[in-house]
Amino acid sequence: MPGKLLVIGGAESHDPGDDVILERFVLLAGGAKAHLVVIATASESPELREKEYAEVFHRLGAEHVTPLRLDDREDSNSARAVAAIDHATGVFFTGGDQLRIATVVGGSKVDSALHVRLADGLILAGTSAGAAMMSSTMIIGGTNASVTTGSVRTGPGMEFLPGVLIDMHFAQRGRLNRLLSAVAMFPHELGLGIDENTAILVDGDVFEVLGAGAVTVIDAGQATTISAPYSDEGGPIALCGAQLHVLPAGWRFNLAERAAIRRSERDHAD
Amino acid sequence: MPGKLLVIGGAESHDPGDDVILERFVLLAGGAKAHLVVIATASESPELREKEYAEVFHRLGAEHVTPLRLDDREDSNSARAVAAIDHATGVFFTGGDQLRIATVVGGSKVDSALHVRLADGLILAGTSAGAAMMSSTMIIGGTNASVTTGSVRTGPGMEFLPGVLIDMHFAQRGRLNRLLSAVAMFPHELGLGIDENTAILVDGDVFEVLGAGAVTVIDAGQATTISAPYSDEGGPIALCGAQLHVLPAGWRFNLAERAAIRRSERDHAD
Repeated sequence: MPGKLLVIGGAESHDPGDDVILERFVLLAGGAKAHLVVIATASESPELREKEYAEVFHRLGAEHVTPLRLDDREDSNSARAVAAIDHATGVFFTGGDQLRIATVVGGSKVDSALHVRLADGLILAGTSAGAAMMSSTMIIGGTNASVTTGSVRTGPGMEFLPGVLIDMHFAQRGRLNRLLSAVAMFPHELGLGIDENTAILVDGDVFEVLGAGAVTVIDAGQATTISAPYSDEGGPIALCGAQLHVLPAGWRFNLAERAAIRRSERDHAD
Repeated sequence: MPGKLLVIGGAESHDPGDDVILERFVLLAGGAKAHLVVIATASESPELREKEYAEVFHRLGAEHVTPLRLDDREDSNSARAVAAIDHATGVFFTGGDQLRIATVVGGSKVDSALHVRLADGLILAGTSAGAAMMSSTMIIGGTNASVTTGSVRTGPGMEFLPGVLIDMHFAQRGRLNRLLSAVAMFPHELGLGIDENTAILVDGDVFEVLGAGAVTVIDAGQATTISAPYSDEGGPIALCGAQLHVLPAGWRFNLAERAAIRRSERDHAD
C-alpha cells in the first residue's frame, strides 16, 4: 500500500476541537498504535517545535512520538536516524526554512529511507517549509509585487510529490504573483497555493482538501499565451488563459488529469 | 467620439520621468490645451490632493487645472459644478473612500453631466477609490483570508464601466480572495485586479494596460463548477475552471469578447 502525503499550508491549529489536520495525521498513522517521528530541522528552535508537536500528538492519542534531531548531515546519515524512520508509521516535518531541510537531509540515508517507507505505506506530513520541500521543485523565495521572470526563486525539492509547485501561507501572505510567475515560466508544474490552517492529503493522483481555508490551483498548461522575456532584472510576464480553481475543505482534485473532481462523482465514489 | 476611461490601481507615480499614467491622462485630455478638473471628494484631505494633482498636471503641460470641491450634494447639484464639468476635457477622481463618491456625487447633476460628457469625448480618470467607483457594481470592502460568500461587500457603482468588478492595490494588498469571492458569486462580471502604479485605458470594448505592474483578469464565465452556499457567516466557495489572465503594460483585452488580444493581432492592428 503506497503511503500518503499531508501537505499543510502553515499555522495549522493545535487547539483541541479545531485540530482536524493534525488529528487526521495521527489517525492515518495508526492512532494509539502510531509511531510518530517529528523532524524540526527547518526550525531555528527545534526543541520548542519538537515539544509542541509531541504534546499535541500525545493529546490526539498517539503513544509513541519520537523527536528526531537532524542538525547536520552526519545526523541524517546515522543508523539511529534511519532506524527511527524505519519504525515510523508517520513522519512530520515542522516549518522554518526549507533550504535547511534540503541541505541537511537531501540525499542522505534518511532521505532514501523516507522514499522507501513512503512507497510502503508511511504517512509523511509537513507544514510550511516542511510542505514546500515536498515537491520536485520548491519555491525558495520571491516577491509578490508583480508577475515577472525575476519574481520567484526555485530550487530542487525532495521529490515526494512531482508535478506541482507548492506555495504556503497563500492567502495570508498574498502570494499569487510569485506563484503565477513560477507557473507561467514552468507550466509543466501545477501551482498549489495552500492557505494557513489548510492542507492537502495526497493519495496517489488525488488530493483532498482539509482545514479552514482553501487551495488555489493554477494551471497554465492550457494557456493560450505566455510571454516571459528573461532578463536579469526580471521582465514582466503576460499570461492568458490560465485555469484557476479554488477548493475548500472536502473538495478533491486529480493531479494527473489536472481537474477537480466534481461533487456528484465524488458523492458517487464515496 | 466617445470618451475614454483611465482606471488606476492607486499609488501612481508622480515622479518626473516615471509618471507615464498621469502623462497619458494629460495628453489624452489635450495636453497644453487641456481643461482638467480634479475631484477629491473621496479624500479626507481634499485640499492636499487638489494641490498635489494640480502641481503634477501643470508640470506635465496642462495650463488649466480646476479643483472642483464637491463636499456635499448641494455642491454636486450646483450650476458652478456642472459648468466646470461641461468645460472639462479631462476629469480626475482622487483616492479615498469610494462610498464618499457614491453618496456625495451619485445621482447628482454632476453625475449626469459626467455621463453626457463621457459620451462626447471626455477622458475620465480615477485612482484607487476614484477607480473602484467606475464599475456598475463596486467593491466596498472585504477580507482576503478566504474565498467565501461573506468575504466581499459590494454596492452600486457609478456605472461608467459596465460588466466588470474593479479591485485596486491588487498585488500590494493581496486581494485575490476577495475578488475571487465576488466573481464566483457574480460570474457575469469580469474581475479586474489592478496593481498599484498601473492602469487600464478603456476605449470602447478594449482596454490597454499602462504602468509598472499588471492587471489580473479573472473570468468565471466558463467555470465548470461554482459552489457558493449562502449563509450569514459566509460559506466557503468552490470554484473550478475559472480563467485567469495576467497583463502587463502594453497588453490589451477585449471586454466584450472576454479575451486578451494576442500580440500578433495587436501588432497587425497597430
